[in-house]
Amino acid sequence: MQIIPPALERLIADLTRLPGIGRKTATRLALYILRRPAAEGRNLAHDLMVLHDTIHLCHQCFTFSETDPCAICGNPGRDSRLVCVVEEPGDQIAIEKTGVFRGTYHILHGVIAPMDGIGPDELKIRELRQRVASGQVDEVLIATSSTVPGEATASYLAEMLQDTKVRLSRLACGIPMGMDIKYADEHTLARAVESRQSVPGRT
Amino acid sequence: MQIIPPALERLIADLTRLPGIGRKTATRLALYILRRPAAEGRNLAHDLMVLHDTIHLCHQCFTFSETDPCAICGNPGRDSRLVCVVEEPGDQIAIEKTGVFRGTYHILHGVIAPMDGIGPDELKIRELRQRVASGQVDEVLIATSSTVPGEATASYLAEMLQDTKVRLSRLACGIPMGMDIKYADEHTLARAVESRQSVPGRT
Ligand SMILES: [Zn+2]
Ligand SMILES: [Zn+2]
Repeated sequence: MQIIPPALERLIADLTRLPGIGRKTATRLALYILRRPAAEGRNLAHDLMVLHDTIHLCHQCFTFSETDPCAICGNPGRDSRLVCVVEEPGDQIAIEKTGVFRGTYHILHGVIAPMDGIGPDELKIRELRQRVASGQVDEVLIATSSTVPGEATASYLAEMLQDTKVRLSRLACGIPMGMDIKYADEHTLARAVESRQSVPGRT
Repeated sequence: MQIIPPALERLIADLTRLPGIGRKTATRLALYILRRPAAEGRNLAHDLMVLHDTIHLCHQCFTFSETDPCAICGNPGRDSRLVCVVEEPGDQIAIEKTGVFRGTYHILHGVIAPMDGIGPDELKIRELRQRVASGQVDEVLIATSSTVPGEATASYLAEMLQDTKVRLSRLACGIPMGMDIKYADEHTLARAVESRQSVPGRT
């Protein structure tokens, strides 16, 4: 017995394909959209429809952008000789929100994950090497996640850039601000000890 | 500094309007859709676009359906004289999944919530009274949620149908199957005591 109408079922199936959305949540969302005025659903549909046509990759940093170069690469106030390498646009958004980074970016669009068939050639790694080889970069700040594939990708990049004159740096790892040391997990705590910073005026 | 392209920002804003989706989740979903092939986003857009045109309310039970009457109202194998009243189509879907209910439904499309400006006239309550008044209903099973507005709505319906000859029933309340009594909350436990059922062959 088919209780869910096919058109609703199709929408539920579409939504279930999104990350973190199970069938129960998808059903709840679809029924919510159906209960709301048609104009709201059509508005969402329209914004989805034009998304891929409107947004492309910046040819320099490979972030999603409506312009090429993107707003950051095209901004003369940003230091194009300092390049922060991140896995995904979401990581770039997180760093931009801090407001402390004045360089530019390079988006890899993933991490090296051999088990998933993702090698360096599936990522924007060759493009990073070319960007560095062009001599227009002084420092590469590797800001991949501190996960196993993130660290593996960072190691790969460090090795790849070893024979260039570029300065390499990584995001500092340690105890999150405001976190009680006894609640930090052991890996984070170990990193914090290894990466300990000297107190100015002491040592 | 606008780091998120406007077309992406619009999609994030649309998604944030959905229930249970905050800005962080909306951003993650929007970036995921952008990274996937354009055809997938367009497929979702298409299914959203046709949703409201394809699905309407069944004139008898007010569930969402592509046909009128809906598959349940139009099924001669269902007992149309037994009507289960639920708040929303999602509740109907949950009851249908149990496979034990062989009657029909009446969807209220909400609960009475004076604080939100939702009175009986905003719901399909007049339509329920008409359905009962037509003399084609023997029993109304009130299956609103056991929340404060759900209970208030149930009371309102019971009072409204008091002077009709229809039999009224409610879903049994009690300890969820498989739950240890000591973990049941006190309201549920109180309901279970009050609604205690006699053991066949005893008393
Ligand atoms: Zn760029
Ligand atoms: Zn119906």
